[in-house]
Amino acid sequence: MTAKKYVYDFAEGGAQLKSLLGGKGANLAEMTSIGIPVPQGFVITTDACVHFSRTGEYPEGLSQEIDSHLANLQKITGKTFGDPANPLLLSIRSGSVFSMPGMMDTVLNLGLNDTTVAGLAQSTGNARFAYDSYRRFINMFGDVVLGIDPQLFEDALTAKKAEVGAKLDTDLSAEDLKDLTVRYKRLLQQHAGRSFPDDPREQLDLAVGAVFKSWDNNRAKVYRQLNNIPDDLGTAVNVQMMVFGNKGETSGTGVAFTRNPATGASEFYGEWLLNAQGEDVVAGVRLPRPLIELKDVMPEIYAELDGIRQKLEAHYRDMQDVEFTIEDGKLYMLQTRNGKRTAAAALQIAVDMVESGMITKEEGLGRIEPDALDQLLHPTLDPKAKAEPLTSGLNASPGAASGMVVFTANEAERRGELGEKVILVRWETNPDDIHGLVYAQGVITSFGGMTSHAAVVARGMGRPCIAGASEVKIDPTGTYFTVGDTAVRENDWITMDGSTGRIYLGKVPLAPPQISGNFDKVLHWADEVRVLGVRTNADTPEDARRAREFGAEGIGLCRTEHMFMQQERLPHVRNMIMAETTEDREVHLAELLPFQREDFEGLFRAMEGLPVTIRLLDPPLHEFLPDYVTVSVQLEHMKCTGASPEEIAEQEKLVAKVKQLHEMNPMLGTRGCRLGIQWPEIYAMQVRAIMEAACNVMAESGKVPQVEIMIPLVGFWVELKMMRELTEKTADAVLAERNVEIPYKVGTMIELPRAAVTADEIAQYADFFSFGTNDLTQTTLGFSRDDAEGKFLTFYTKQGILKANPFQKLDQDGVGRLVAMAKEKSRAVNPTIKLGICGEHGGEPSSIDFCHRVGLNYVSCSPFRVPLARLAAAQAALNKGAGPASNA
Amino acid sequence: MTAKKYVYDFAEGGAQLKSLLGGKGANLAEMTSIGIPVPQGFVITTDACVHFSRTGEYPEGLSQEIDSHLANLQKITGKTFGDPANPLLLSIRSGSVFSMPGMMDTVLNLGLNDTTVAGLAQSTGNARFAYDSYRRFINMFGDVVLGIDPQLFEDALTAKKAEVGAKLDTDLSAEDLKDLTVRYKRLLQQHAGRSFPDDPREQLDLAVGAVFKSWDNNRAKVYRQLNNIPDDLGTAVNVQMMVFGNKGETSGTGVAFTRNPATGASEFYGEWLLNAQGEDVVAGVRLPRPLIELKDVMPEIYAELDGIRQKLEAHYRDMQDVEFTIEDGKLYMLQTRNGKRTAAAALQIAVDMVESGMITKEEGLGRIEPDALDQLLHPTLDPKAKAEPLTSGLNASPGAASGMVVFTANEAERRGELGEKVILVRWETNPDDIHGLVYAQGVITSFGGMTSHAAVVARGMGRPCIAGASEVKIDPTGTYFTVGDTAVRENDWITMDGSTGRIYLGKVPLAPPQISGNFDKVLHWADEVRVLGVRTNADTPEDARRAREFGAEGIGLCRTEHMFMQQERLPHVRNMIMAETTEDREVHLAELLPFQREDFEGLFRAMEGLPVTIRLLDPPLHEFLPDYVTVSVQLEHMKCTGASPEEIAEQEKLVAKVKQLHEMNPMLGTRGCRLGIQWPEIYAMQVRAIMEAACNVMAESGKVPQVEIMIPLVGFWVELKMMRELTEKTADAVLAERNVEIPYKVGTMIELPRAAVTADEIAQYADFFSFGTNDLTQTTLGFSRDDAEGKFLTFYTKQGILKANPFQKLDQDGVGRLVAMAKEKSRAVNPTIKLGICGEHGGEPSSIDFCHRVGLNYVSCSPFRVPLARLAAAQAALNKGAGPASNA
Repeated sequence: MTAKKYVYDFAEGGAQLKSLLGGKGANLAEMTSIGIPVPQGFVITTDACVHFSRTGEYPEGLSQEIDSHLANLQKITGKTFGDPANPLLLSIRSGSVFSMPGMMDTVLNLGLNDTTVAGLAQSTGNARFAYDSYRRFINMFGDVVLGIDPQLFEDALTAKKAEVGAKLDTDLSAEDLKDLTVRYKRLLQQHAGRSFPDDPREQLDLAVGAVFKSWDNNRAKVYRQLNNIPDDLGTAVNVQMMVFGNKGETSGTGVAFTRNPATGASEFYGEWLLNAQGEDVVAGVRLPRPLIELKDVMPEIYAELDGIRQKLEAHYRDMQDVEFTIEDGKLYMLQTRNGKRTAAAALQIAVDMVESGMITKEEGLGRIEPDALDQLLHPTLDPKAKAEPLTSGLNASPGAASGMVVFTANEAERRGELGEKVILVRWETNPDDIHGLVYAQGVITSFGGMTSHAAVVARGMGRPCIAGASEVKIDPTGTYFTVGDTAVRENDWITMDGSTGRIYLGKVPLAPPQISGNFDKVLHWADEVRVLGVRTNADTPEDARRAREFGAEGIGLCRTEHMFMQQERLPHVRNMIMAETTEDREVHLAELLPFQREDFEGLFRAMEGLPVTIRLLDPPLHEFLPDYVTVSVQLEHMKCTGASPEEIAEQEKLVAKVKQLHEMNPMLGTRGCRLGIQWPEIYAMQVRAIMEAACNVMAESGKVPQVEIMIPLVGFWVELKMMRELTEKTADAVLAERNVEIPYKVGTMIELPRAAVTADEIAQYADFFSFGTNDLTQTTLGFSRDDAEGKFLTFYTKQGILKANPFQKLDQDGVGRLVAMAKEKSRAVNPTIKLGICGEHGGEPSSIDFCHRVGLNYVSCSPFRVPLARLAAAQAALNKGAGPASNA
Repeated sequence: MTAKKYVYDFAEGGAQLKSLLGGKGANLAEMTSIGIPVPQGFVITTDACVHFSRTGEYPEGLSQEIDSHLANLQKITGKTFGDPANPLLLSIRSGSVFSMPGMMDTVLNLGLNDTTVAGLAQSTGNARFAYDSYRRFINMFGDVVLGIDPQLFEDALTAKKAEVGAKLDTDLSAEDLKDLTVRYKRLLQQHAGRSFPDDPREQLDLAVGAVFKSWDNNRAKVYRQLNNIPDDLGTAVNVQMMVFGNKGETSGTGVAFTRNPATGASEFYGEWLLNAQGEDVVAGVRLPRPLIELKDVMPEIYAELDGIRQKLEAHYRDMQDVEFTIEDGKLYMLQTRNGKRTAAAALQIAVDMVESGMITKEEGLGRIEPDALDQLLHPTLDPKAKAEPLTSGLNASPGAASGMVVFTANEAERRGELGEKVILVRWETNPDDIHGLVYAQGVITSFGGMTSHAAVVARGMGRPCIAGASEVKIDPTGTYFTVGDTAVRENDWITMDGSTGRIYLGKVPLAPPQISGNFDKVLHWADEVRVLGVRTNADTPEDARRAREFGAEGIGLCRTEHMFMQQERLPHVRNMIMAETTEDREVHLAELLPFQREDFEGLFRAMEGLPVTIRLLDPPLHEFLPDYVTVSVQLEHMKCTGASPEEIAEQEKLVAKVKQLHEMNPMLGTRGCRLGIQWPEIYAMQVRAIMEAACNVMAESGKVPQVEIMIPLVGFWVELKMMRELTEKTADAVLAERNVEIPYKVGTMIELPRAAVTADEIAQYADFFSFGTNDLTQTTLGFSRDDAEGKFLTFYTKQGILKANPFQKLDQDGVGRLVAMAKEKSRAVNPTIKLGICGEHGGEPSSIDFCHRVGLNYVSCSPFRVPLARLAAAQAALNKGAGPASNA
């Protein structure tokens, strides 16, 4: 039996050994294997860690293996561990198979002691740097390896600075730092119960054990639990030679991208510093120089680097972001990884690489973050502008805009019509405000969430919206708002970024939307690949047309309540609600019928025979009435100020109706089909309007509309059965009157847990299901979106209790299980049932991936998310989507 | 091959043939088989119906079989079909295996025509009766067999009455009725497109076919779907000789019970009428005579009947309710079935039958409706009092009471302390009202639901409560209330029945609670049999003691918020909520700590070492603050009426805090562990109070309290993990301070769908789960109890869309599936986890049966439901519970 091998030189490994070497180790070995110069070293395998975790001891033979690999490393580098003249210094880093950033421990500059520090000082010609490195090493070693509270070292540093009158760490001299090393070692002795180990080999043994142990520290365990990473994998340990770019005029350091990360152009792009360490670049103390200047200063190094650039791209087949250090005229690559890039660059690089044959179309699709497409559709803040945000709220609708502050919708309309740029700032919005939105560049509300009227309408129109900006306090005079001590007056310019939720004072430069030919090209690749259909949520013909331009294949959700909210209709809606008898109500419904018919005609025309799913009225009726508190306070005011008895009586009637309809928990109240069941005349009017519109559009265009009528909030099959009967009776009557045949489908939203667990019963009465994952999330999690966002949910996500907002990313473990269950149950009894999703998750990549995996037919999202959804659906089909995600 | 047999004489069948003969047919055959005289006849099997359903035709040979059984029947009865002198008349009734009352069709008096009607007139000496029977037969035949709208016959009757100036049907003479038969036959001819069939044999064929068809009528299909009855069973058809009790002085009719149904005493009990039909007894035109008088009038018949009484009890082994008819001195039993009885009678009969050895204890347990026990614990309206209710509301807490109306809690307290009987009537209650409840006989609220403070507290105290009596409108002066036009003033006497929700004017006589020795006897039998534990929901030591007297084995739910609501604590609670900083909040929490500790000491003392499950604070904090509308209106009032700037500023601060905490959907907002996670100091105070109390009670009594700490509203495992850590840290600190060991458990409520579908993850951190089925019903169904009851849910149950209120009977198809799933998932990872239920379903028989079947460990219910739960749990164990139930 051969002894198990626990240590690999970089030259021995490669990407195929990732489960033994971890991600970082495998990558270093990979670079070595293709001849890229990396600071050499070796990897101690995850197997060794697993053994250590179980037994608390190194496996048999590990020490000897380390000895022999260390000897080899000394031979390769020409440096010796503990050599006072030219000491070998090492970094010791964890590296597990799955990335766990910051969860485990690292030790740098290992090998320093009172003797070798002098060698470092000499070879770098920088005693201050040497002693600072030494001080940091003792601190890190004490903390990571010996478990000493790092605050003790921090306190000693502060004390020293006070003694010598230094303000910043950089004010300390080499002598000061040398003195600190003495103090640090004393501290270490006191608190660790042992002296600082001068022997580098002992340092190494202790450090490797500490990294092994860090696999089982608490935060790493929680991280693994949150990310579904098995506990028994262990981490590898990378032991690597330290290199220094600050050894003089033949040394240096830099970062580079193999292509331009801003534009995607195929050019070598980067920055470097002569005689400097990597941290100098980051710290910004010295101004880095463009990479091209390296060509003049060190032409051979530059040529080598450019060769490496091509080699790396050819090998990794993607744009790379590299770090390099030049030590005494020798180039070392410290790291290579796929480079981050702007949305435009991502498109450009993918198209270039596909067209040059470097990658396939399928690979090209996988290289583009779906969210990047969304960025390209909206103006953004100019990335070069470095503005400080004044405050922030929820990123309710993406895009950036600048404008003058106005506080009323009427003012927004008046000024907007004059061609002025205004931003509407409101406490919260109600239906009466919506006309102001048409003329504003964007809208900001202090209250309200992602589903407020303002947010929904703004998303449909592609206008930026920030909701729930709770620090924005509008003065009751309505002439200014404050954020803390800052007052912003009417007509002051502000800039908002709906993609991030940030608000800025003044005009911050914007970058325009960047739709290029690449955009369409990539989306057509996506369409060739994807399995999921992509529809849109659209309430108006304009929304519908825009969504079709973006490639929507139908309307997955038309919310008829937004039609009721329009200013000229609201009085009819209110009369209908205030009606005391069915007859009276029918009179007012008849007044609404022509409006509704016209709405639907517009939609059917815009969609030209593509499917149109119309949801019958869903919200509780009190949403169409004024607020209960407001009308009560008005009544009190009228009483106090001596209004006439008639006026008071009228107001009392209004208060009584509002109180009667007022609900403790409207989300769980009289809404959805509960309205249609109690007042069937409302749904009957809507179905009649839909079918009359379909008949009219068919008559004028000759195209047969694909009508899909959706009953909301079904929890019991009998509800759907009743509403299906009502729908069929009404629709068939219209078709008989018109003497035409238009096929139509009847289906329901699945938005209650009960609907999901009894989907087999409900599916017997449904031609289609659309998962209303907004509401399904609310009921499954018991989260009212209005009350969660900005309150406990924000607390949860900030604290990391939840990894993601479940209203943005579908909660696959909870809500997703109900969706999967409903799919299984419904298809079992009704194999041809069409299944889609129309919650906002329909426009979010990880959720789209889930929809693909679970086997839905289509996703539906807001018009501006359609391109994103097409791409995400393609990635899901290529199994390059986000994969299973967990919110907890 | 023998031809299949489709027709059975009663004498050929018996209970074992129920699936062929249906329930009614089998029972008639059963009585025949034990020698009970029933009007003879035969049964056409369900098989024949199934054949007819499939093919639309009689099966081969059925007509011939009917012919031969009809011939036999003529022989037995001595009457002949169509004989003008002594005609055989038949009833044709459906009778399926599962009872489907009123769903299918019946035809009576078949065999009548213009000739035989004269024979009937002669044999009964009552021409009016004969023609009335004939008229009814034509009507019924036209409607049921030929599908004619019965309104047509109704209109003809009305017209005839108008012609002859008759007000009532009974004002019509024999001649009038004879004329009507002519008109009816004409109508039938016009609308059925055929003449009335004079031939009795043709009548029979058509009627049998019509009954077959009625199996597939729409209402029967829906009924079967609602009741999970298969569609392919078919119905049997019972063809039976009609008998007449109105043939003179040797005829009669009556009903009887084999024991006294009011008291359970073993005595023959009933009523009869000489020379009368059954409908005469029901119609109440003639006063029935006590059964004992039959002994004088027809001693032989009485003796025969008394013999049958004993035979039936011996055979059916339960108290029977029988109908009988005497035709020409011959006794016929028309029906026997288990008799309905009062709660007291049910106990008495069960105990008597068990003690006499007629039935086993297990059978005895199955004979008592669990709800009956609940009746016995509370005063009821005297069943003899025939009061008309003024109005009604929700039956929020059972029991009846009379008292004088008062409108404030203070007045209730003042008057109650003087020993007066008062009933507190409130618009709705808030925590400030609760002290008034202690002194009131009962409470009525216009608003609020089954979970309002008043309802919960009243149930705990065993006081009657009617909530949501929406017709009760209290005048703003607070001196009277109105219901429609009726005004009820302060000090007027009213009577309320919390078991039915009805309210009466004046003093209606009450019957006292009726706990007898039988009560305890039966419950001890139940304890021997049941598997489920029975705990109580109790918030006070008084509740706990009462529940223990009723047999509770622990506290399954102590809601700590009710402790916060007490008057002397509310100011501290409000200060705690208004606190701006953690430090400030901790100061006020420290003031609450001694109160809480005292609360828990009381509970631990009362339970003497039995388990006590304490739920940490659950409701949203704004529940402890005044109402948002009220404080806003107050503020407006203060502004209008010139209050001082300081007062206004103070009120504005209150309004701002209430607004800040105000939630759109508090049920889905910041409550449960979301409080504990954001403000851990609140839960820490509660845990400290619990553990200090446990230490104190252990020190004083030597008994170790069984502490179970329950974290509410967990949806994500990480929430429970965090709260478990907080609990353990706090509890262990207390135990260390006191230097004692008290084991304690930490668990959670399962009250969110997400908790149910991820129960395997959550169970890793839980010692127990308690299903909070009130909230789980709310979220699973999307029903806010406050907004559903009295509104759409009441509409649904009244319309039969839902068969039961899912807050009363567990929705087994929806919520129940989640409970079962959570049980499977949790036990799979944590086999010893203790599972219980603490929603109100824990005190409802069909839900308790479900809990037994699904394998929970215990149910927990309000103190007064404990006896019921013990019995229902025993029935569940004996598989005599309600079985699977469906709400839809």
